[in-house]
Amino acid sequence: MPLIKIDTIEGRTEEESQALLDATHRAVLAAFKVPEGDRYQILSEHPAEHMKIEDTGLGIQRTRDVVFFQITTRPRPKDQKEAFYRLLTEELSSQCGIAPSDVVVTMVENSDEDWSFGYGRPQFLTGEL
Amino acid sequence: MPLIKIDTIEGRTEEESQALLDATHRAVLAAFKVPEGDRYQILSEHPAEHMKIEDTGLGIQRTRDVVFFQITTRPRPKDQKEAFYRLLTEELSSQCGIAPSDVVVTMVENSDEDWSFGYGRPQFLTGEL
Amino acid sequence: MPLIKIDTIEGRTEEESQALLDATHRAVLAAFKVPEGDRYQILSEHPAEHMKIEDTGLGIQRTRDVVFFQITTRPRPKDQKEAFYRLLTEELSSQCGIAPSDVVVTMVENSDEDWSFGYGRPQFLTGEL
Repeated sequence: MPLIKIDTIEGRTEEESQALLDATHRAVLAAFKVPEGDRYQILSEHPAEHMKIEDTGLGIQRTRDVVFFQITTRPRPKDQKEAFYRLLTEELSSQCGIAPSDVVVTMVENSDEDWSFGYGRPQFLTGEL
Repeated sequence: MPLIKIDTIEGRTEEESQALLDATHRAVLAAFKVPEGDRYQILSEHPAEHMKIEDTGLGIQRTRDVVFFQITTRPRPKDQKEAFYRLLTEELSSQCGIAPSDVVVTMVENSDEDWSFGYGRPQFLTGEL
Repeated sequence: MPLIKIDTIEGRTEEESQALLDATHRAVLAAFKVPEGDRYQILSEHPAEHMKIEDTGLGIQRTRDVVFFQITTRPRPKDQKEAFYRLLTEELSSQCGIAPSDVVVTMVENSDEDWSFGYGRPQFLTGEL
């Protein structure tokens, strides 16, 4: 927790995809203060024409580098979310060369009872987490 | 905002997929009254046997044309959602030949602070949107 | 309803994937007490390096069999969710040979108005469901 689903346009090398996943995880660790092993990432690549990522009139130009992040998380304070948006673009820009204009994020919140990390148990309820 | 994730069974021509995306966007614009550039669509195609879309006993027959829409959006009034369901099936039927019986939709709501459209900023909070 | 999105690492035979989907559906039926036809499953396969599923320090070892389930559902009591986690691992273990340590689940809740199963209508609101 959180779960990070990442959608990109195909064309990255595997090394670039791995750098993207690693940079994202560093932003998660720094913003959400979760343990190192709190890593749940799923990356999906798409043909460019299957990702239509515009800008709601904000004047943001997207490139083929555009990355869409969908986060599922227990409730988090607003300042943690704001920190995540900022740290994520910093990591992706400095470590992967992805422009901050190509980073789009949306989050959805759920509850303690909505997670099972294995063994058929809800670890946030059992006290294991 | 909203984010529209679309799952289909593989086999459409690229022209058909584009028509599907365009028709969906017209329904979003008409139902949710968002700006033209408020377009965030991700299309994923699957082998038929990896999409099991039944009908909860409603007596709805699905075909290979079946499309599943997952919408993530800030809260919207019920009448907007109802309008979207209706307009979406009208667009897909008239413009893409997709039967209203092949259109399934689910929505999840989140909040202003749950969106960043670029530059690491939450544009609904900064006043940019 | 519910929608079950399933992410796996590629390499299963089609027969194994179908067994996974069927076992999952049996757990849904048993835990959530929904009708037999309440089946909405979408399976996506990924290269191993695109799924980073760790354990938040719980000491759970993942294998290539790891399966991530994302459930979207109307609100359900906690005991139904707990039953689902348990029954899902039981089914996957006994019927598919997937270890309980390889089963990760997260859920997100929505409302009656957030579902349309066809024909552009919200069947939970119209009284059809």
